[in-house]
Amino acid sequence: MTMNKTVRLARRPHGEVQNEDFAIAEEALTDPKEGEFRVRSAYVSLDPAMRGWMNDAKSYVPALGIGEVMRGFVSGTVEASRHPKFKEGDTVSGLLGVQSHPVTTGEGVVKADTSLAPLQTWVGGLGMPGLTAYLGLTYVGEPKKGETVVVSAASGAVGQVVGQIARIYGCRTVGIAGGPDKCSSLKSEFGYDEAVDYKNGWLTDDLKAACPDGIDVDFENVGGDILDAVLPLMNFKGRIAICGLISAYNATAPVPGPYNFRSILVNRLRVQGFIVFDFLDKYAEAYKQLGTWYKEGKLTFREDVREGGIDAFPDVLKMLYRGENFGKLILKV
Amino acid sequence: MTMNKTVRLARRPHGEVQNEDFAIAEEALTDPKEGEFRVRSAYVSLDPAMRGWMNDAKSYVPALGIGEVMRGFVSGTVEASRHPKFKEGDTVSGLLGVQSHPVTTGEGVVKADTSLAPLQTWVGGLGMPGLTAYLGLTYVGEPKKGETVVVSAASGAVGQVVGQIARIYGCRTVGIAGGPDKCSSLKSEFGYDEAVDYKNGWLTDDLKAACPDGIDVDFENVGGDILDAVLPLMNFKGRIAICGLISAYNATAPVPGPYNFRSILVNRLRVQGFIVFDFLDKYAEAYKQLGTWYKEGKLTFREDVREGGIDAFPDVLKMLYRGENFGKLILKV
Repeated sequence: MTMNKTVRLARRPHGEVQNEDFAIAEEALTDPKEGEFRVRSAYVSLDPAMRGWMNDAKSYVPALGIGEVMRGFVSGTVEASRHPKFKEGDTVSGLLGVQSHPVTTGEGVVKADTSLAPLQTWVGGLGMPGLTAYLGLTYVGEPKKGETVVVSAASGAVGQVVGQIARIYGCRTVGIAGGPDKCSSLKSEFGYDEAVDYKNGWLTDDLKAACPDGIDVDFENVGGDILDAVLPLMNFKGRIAICGLISAYNATAPVPGPYNFRSILVNRLRVQGFIVFDFLDKYAEAYKQLGTWYKEGKLTFREDVREGGIDAFPDVLKMLYRGENFGKLILKV
Repeated sequence: MTMNKTVRLARRPHGEVQNEDFAIAEEALTDPKEGEFRVRSAYVSLDPAMRGWMNDAKSYVPALGIGEVMRGFVSGTVEASRHPKFKEGDTVSGLLGVQSHPVTTGEGVVKADTSLAPLQTWVGGLGMPGLTAYLGLTYVGEPKKGETVVVSAASGAVGQVVGQIARIYGCRTVGIAGGPDKCSSLKSEFGYDEAVDYKNGWLTDDLKAACPDGIDVDFENVGGDILDAVLPLMNFKGRIAICGLISAYNATAPVPGPYNFRSILVNRLRVQGFIVFDFLDKYAEAYKQLGTWYKEGKLTFREDVREGGIDAFPDVLKMLYRGENFGKLILKV
């Protein structure tokens, strides 16, 4: 008899995630009620934001309650439906939670067109990273053709995609990453015009050399010293889309904001924070555009798919925080 | 014979402004050429931004050249004109420079309707402070009725006006200032709903108590600790209009940005720098609206008018930086 295998939050982690923070169980399948449908999960996305969701603190989204199914992006196939818009056999992707047989009303779920990309890619490059890159760059960064776009953590799951989209928009793209391997892949694999290695120790000078016309849009994933190198190079009326500030995530003492904060006034910048959940009404547009570009060969994603099913979720999540993945980390159910 | 008395930049100041930084001279009157007109200056505005204009550094506006007439807002009466839109006897206000008989093409100059307010007020409350307050609050802060608007340096020339305009827009207004006298005038004279004295030593707690519904718009003149107290109280999708960062103007070492910078991401804030010169195309609208409100008795300005004419400019400017004025500082020509 088929069961629903679930990953539920057992306790709130302190510091690094432990296996004991999760409870994995087999539960009876739920039949969809009127207006609901049930999905057979195929792939689960592993995302850096997951650690934050497990905290009981005011943050981007409501904290997950103890005992709740772990929040997560999942792609799969509808296997039972009493929903007017989703029918058996439809492939879908969305916030379905880390479980093998989620039942949903369809909120935050879209149809995944497998003629554009396989189900794996609907939680990979086309999933949360792709949505974040597309929506943040398009609607917060607002780049114009010919402008210079800088991306920090450019080899990360989001950063890879931002550079490629900025290039599609006709921008000059400069990626910041750590180490020669990552910087090399920025240019060879993801089409960045320039790559700057922040580990070289000459970030300010190297970034300046890579941006002879200044910076119009900064897609910021890191903050700290990286943002401080970016700020003085920003052009008049430039835009900084704050997607993440990972340089401060593990800090145990208060972290100062950028020393070059004054550039916001001098250059009349717009600095704006966003997360992908702010744009629920634009998901359909984003998925369609990303899927089309992907099919046209304009987007490349590096995905790192791990086996092991739902049971392997805690171990694979720990890999993410140890940086053991190369590319977007995905768990095959 | 009437001469044009001018204040020209003689050298760039180091630290505080000195009288020797200026050269005051009597020069032959210039007759307006086709498309120009000549003004008999009545009042000169003394503004904090003047110190920055004297530096040779990239800043808000191009640096003043050595030997150039000191930049400044002036009101007066047209006494000779070959300009199609300005005729003899018209009263005007604008960037005419610190001199008794400026000749101009009319760029950055508007007609000053003395049926709405006297010439003094056209460089006082209705001058640079009023323009800055109106344009920054309206087009950067974008407050909506019922929202909470916080203003730092609220008893300053700009801050006084911001609070009153926010009140006209139907907002709850909270002013931050230093000392009981200034805080008392915020409520009694300028109509703030709440006043917070940052010198009390409990800024974070006091501001929180004054903003039970959080902060939707921050009109920031100060930065530093003040901005750090504001950031955690900002509501979702709040806006911070950066008008000034005076807490850092005299710093001799790098100053960290706000420690609570992360609030920009968590609360998806928009932080945007601006100066009044960014809105040249909206000056006419702003002057008209401010003049109308003033005539209707909805705006009060505290102006501090000093005698002594053009010769007194350096001494009166020094008063501004020593904080010896109470209200908007104006020099009568």
